[in-house]
Amino acid sequence: MKLKRTHNCGELRIEDSGKDIVLNGWVENYRDHGGVAFIDLFDRWGLTQVVFDPQVAPEAHAVAHTLRSQFVIAIEGEVRARPEGMANPNMDTGDVEVYVKSFELLNKSATPPFDVQHSEDVNAETRLVHRYLDLRGKKLQNNMIFRSRVTGMIRNYFLGNDFVEVETPILTKSTPEGARDYLVPSRVNPGNFYALPQSPQLFKQSLMIAGFDRYFQIARCFRDEDLRADRQPEFTQVDLEMSFVNRDDIMGMLEGLFKDLMKDLFDKDLKLPLPRITYDDAMMKYGCDAPDLRFDLEIVDCSDVFRESGFGVFKNAIAAGGFVRSINLKGAADKLSRKDLDEMTPFIKPFRGKGVAWIKMNEDGPQSPIVKFFTDEESKALYEKMGAEKGDVLIFVADQEKVVCQSLAALRDHMAKKLGLVDENELNFSWVIDFPLFEKDDEGNPTSVHHPFTAPRPEDEHLLDTDVFKVKTNAYDLVLNGNEIGGGSVRIHDGEMQAKIFSLLGISDDEAKEKFGFLLDALKFGAPPHAGLALGLDRIMMLFLGTDSIRDVIAFPKTQKATCMMTDAPGVVAEAQLDELGIELALIEEDDD
Amino acid sequence: MKLKRTHNCGELRIEDSGKDIVLNGWVENYRDHGGVAFIDLFDRWGLTQVVFDPQVAPEAHAVAHTLRSQFVIAIEGEVRARPEGMANPNMDTGDVEVYVKSFELLNKSATPPFDVQHSEDVNAETRLVHRYLDLRGKKLQNNMIFRSRVTGMIRNYFLGNDFVEVETPILTKSTPEGARDYLVPSRVNPGNFYALPQSPQLFKQSLMIAGFDRYFQIARCFRDEDLRADRQPEFTQVDLEMSFVNRDDIMGMLEGLFKDLMKDLFDKDLKLPLPRITYDDAMMKYGCDAPDLRFDLEIVDCSDVFRESGFGVFKNAIAAGGFVRSINLKGAADKLSRKDLDEMTPFIKPFRGKGVAWIKMNEDGPQSPIVKFFTDEESKALYEKMGAEKGDVLIFVADQEKVVCQSLAALRDHMAKKLGLVDENELNFSWVIDFPLFEKDDEGNPTSVHHPFTAPRPEDEHLLDTDVFKVKTNAYDLVLNGNEIGGGSVRIHDGEMQAKIFSLLGISDDEAKEKFGFLLDALKFGAPPHAGLALGLDRIMMLFLGTDSIRDVIAFPKTQKATCMMTDAPGVVAEAQLDELGIELALIEEDDD
Repeated sequence: MKLKRTHNCGELRIEDSGKDIVLNGWVENYRDHGGVAFIDLFDRWGLTQVVFDPQVAPEAHAVAHTLRSQFVIAIEGEVRARPEGMANPNMDTGDVEVYVKSFELLNKSATPPFDVQHSEDVNAETRLVHRYLDLRGKKLQNNMIFRSRVTGMIRNYFLGNDFVEVETPILTKSTPEGARDYLVPSRVNPGNFYALPQSPQLFKQSLMIAGFDRYFQIARCFRDEDLRADRQPEFTQVDLEMSFVNRDDIMGMLEGLFKDLMKDLFDKDLKLPLPRITYDDAMMKYGCDAPDLRFDLEIVDCSDVFRESGFGVFKNAIAAGGFVRSINLKGAADKLSRKDLDEMTPFIKPFRGKGVAWIKMNEDGPQSPIVKFFTDEESKALYEKMGAEKGDVLIFVADQEKVVCQSLAALRDHMAKKLGLVDENELNFSWVIDFPLFEKDDEGNPTSVHHPFTAPRPEDEHLLDTDVFKVKTNAYDLVLNGNEIGGGSVRIHDGEMQAKIFSLLGISDDEAKEKFGFLLDALKFGAPPHAGLALGLDRIMMLFLGTDSIRDVIAFPKTQKATCMMTDAPGVVAEAQLDELGIELALIEEDDD
Repeated sequence: MKLKRTHNCGELRIEDSGKDIVLNGWVENYRDHGGVAFIDLFDRWGLTQVVFDPQVAPEAHAVAHTLRSQFVIAIEGEVRARPEGMANPNMDTGDVEVYVKSFELLNKSATPPFDVQHSEDVNAETRLVHRYLDLRGKKLQNNMIFRSRVTGMIRNYFLGNDFVEVETPILTKSTPEGARDYLVPSRVNPGNFYALPQSPQLFKQSLMIAGFDRYFQIARCFRDEDLRADRQPEFTQVDLEMSFVNRDDIMGMLEGLFKDLMKDLFDKDLKLPLPRITYDDAMMKYGCDAPDLRFDLEIVDCSDVFRESGFGVFKNAIAAGGFVRSINLKGAADKLSRKDLDEMTPFIKPFRGKGVAWIKMNEDGPQSPIVKFFTDEESKALYEKMGAEKGDVLIFVADQEKVVCQSLAALRDHMAKKLGLVDENELNFSWVIDFPLFEKDDEGNPTSVHHPFTAPRPEDEHLLDTDVFKVKTNAYDLVLNGNEIGGGSVRIHDGEMQAKIFSLLGISDDEAKEKFGFLLDALKFGAPPHAGLALGLDRIMMLFLGTDSIRDVIAFPKTQKATCMMTDAPGVVAEAQLDELGIELALIEEDDD
């Protein structure tokens, strides 16, 4: 290329008028206005109007009409103020235009399969196949630039707080994070496999034992799961760990990070400390452990009211060990039609909910299919408990606790959106704390709520021998607008306690030794008290950018079938490669499901 | 833990005397001096002398003797100036000691398998098995902290220069970097495999086509090679690419980086621009494309002198298309024994060198087994060409060019060390430029010197049709003390040129489409001129830290058998996992070799 740019396409201003400059960039469009041709030339930094005037440069003008969208050109010319009334206040460079004196065609472009600046409605497959074009559009490009900037800020925050960034292995051993591992056959050790890490958990604990004191890493992690819309086979985690700390030290360190980010990115002052809610409270009041606190709509337990009720559905649910819980949709009576209310029942089907009861507190008295079964005392007690007033709508689910919680949590989010209670511009952070150490698996045996390296609260240790499901932890999840964006815990630093937890989890000594032998070993040699956390960087980017697709924050994402449409990965490989690895294909006919 | 530190173990100074403070850390050693016990307590930041005095705290003193090396403790006590004459000027905290008032045992330690602060002579396997202990030693810990710091500086340099850091996929498709790929079977797409990237080459070019203009990434890369001492299955690359630039822009950007690093890390002023040497010159003068320029010892071609020589070895080598080349070991006659000179011949065996001839320019005339075969004219012409004076030693290799180059390059390094010409503290940077585009493979066909995306120099494009091996590129390698620490090139941005290069490389249209179809596609849609480079971060850390083992700069390295001794990766996996992946083992009995 002969014409090397002196400026980018976003920086020329009225003060530059009269200068001879060179721009390099892509042609956005071509307009011919009575013999004078206009081109919008763009690059990463912006867009500048370029003028081909036959009186200024007849040669350049003569070929200008051959330029097409996405051609790459270099132009040399003079910056001029736009004529009176022609300035464009919506463009940074809108006060000027460049009169071309000479130009150089750097590359042609075939007609793109879609308009790179307006690809929203193009089908996803075409966009993914031509990802390099979709990324040329302002939206995705700005998302990636934003991600780079935020990631840099996160790194510098931790480096500035004496954290050491350590790269931990990608070719490693299976870790028990609950999902399937991606495996990598070893050629040098035939019959053996590496696993790609689901998290650097054991490495970061090793680093604490090694005395690094403060570790972080922006770490690539992998899960071979069946993908949901917001999952990718590989994802990025802000991973950190600290020694000689307790729960509040970790939470404080993270609060400092988000305070800085909110200020620098959005010029908002995050009020610290962030609200904290216990796991038990969150489950009771919001039906889930990652509640959206941008709105209230608290769940209230009314089981006491209906224990002896004549309304069999409620009474029987309670008698079967379940609960009757309700949300007061304050002032919603006018806003919800009978259809809206009836549609709630199918909405909770995925959670095995059987039905949603409702009471509309109309001007002329309660309207409901169920109030007729209540005694006056029950109605009175209910309205008092729920703070029900004229204009409100009460909704009810009566069932086993898990069904009630999941159904009402989903209805709470659904109704908040429907009733316009959600401020889409708000970023609402909170902590959920005091998680149980164990929950019951399908057979009723203990399984870790977080992971097997989470320490019980010291004051609950005695319960390990008597009532394991009552043991709480100093674990903490960071929640943003109803999404868990991070989670962590105080870890076990005592080898005997770690062995005990493995044993409670039904992990035999042999299995523990095989899988975590080195951790049990390491804990013998002076492990300091330590705690840590991991943030889901992709999720945070989605929430900060206000997008609901993870593909909008990852440069080269995979589809739900875990394929990359651009490179066509994964692909078949040569027989010889498999031979070298000591493996062969053993494909089974697919079942109908 | 009850006693949370107020200070770290490296920060107490004489000004802190009188303060009540808390330290947390590891016990380094225990000394009993007539009833008063001393402990060196250490953490990442340093070491503080802690005193258990029975008069100050009888209870603490009574248990102090139970403390062992690597126990983790918290102590609360008073900072006092050390007594007159007892200060230790070699320690940052050497002016003070802390008189313990109370202490807390945070964790015990079994007797470690080696002294964590002095593990140099411990066998490598023991150190790798207990990597968390080896990393607790100052040397490795400081290496990792240094690496974190330098990596942060590199990142901020590129971010500050408007580069966008983009994470590219780890689960991707095979790229043709010349080494074996690690493969990952896809469960969702049975029979298909991801490859772990050998570099993000195609992704960064895609990002240039997408208009990102300036990209960088600290990228994990993978090569399934048989490992040498300085290779690891996974390694880290500072990967970058720029658009609308030429070779000098990339070189200038990198020179700015290293100037900053040299200043900030070593307080040295790097003189810019760095020396540049063409590939042809490097091969002629130093016998290799990554010469160590900390010393001279240039290779000189003497073939003209001996073309008709009576010394058959030289004459015949030349007649067979080879060369006679020599290095003048200036003033080395006194320093090299006959044994030293005779040992050169076995030294070049690995390069298929058959022998090294030598002439010692003694006070009483040349001493050599070969001068007797030279005519006077030959001797005169030789000494003149070589600038040979009394006290010098000339060494010769006569053979085919490749053998001559490799042999003399190795001898040059070897002799420079032997003669003490290497300043171990110098960091000597240079560029090697103007690489050939192709070299001959074993069958004499063209194969890429860098990779198939390297552009020919525009002025050499016409040679593609006539003499491909004469085509040079605008590729550039950055060399530090004889090690290639980075390399890159101006890329092909024209689809037709790319197709032509594939074709010259014997890659069929079908294969090109299968492997790089998306790149050929992408090049159709307005690819800008672009160029880039990748730095080997591990190698740079080694050179900066002056270590000759890559394991010293990687937290959790693998052995030459590609295993992790700490986690015992890779490992066997369950049959069910392989079933899910649609593969099975097909192990073959190992051959004797």
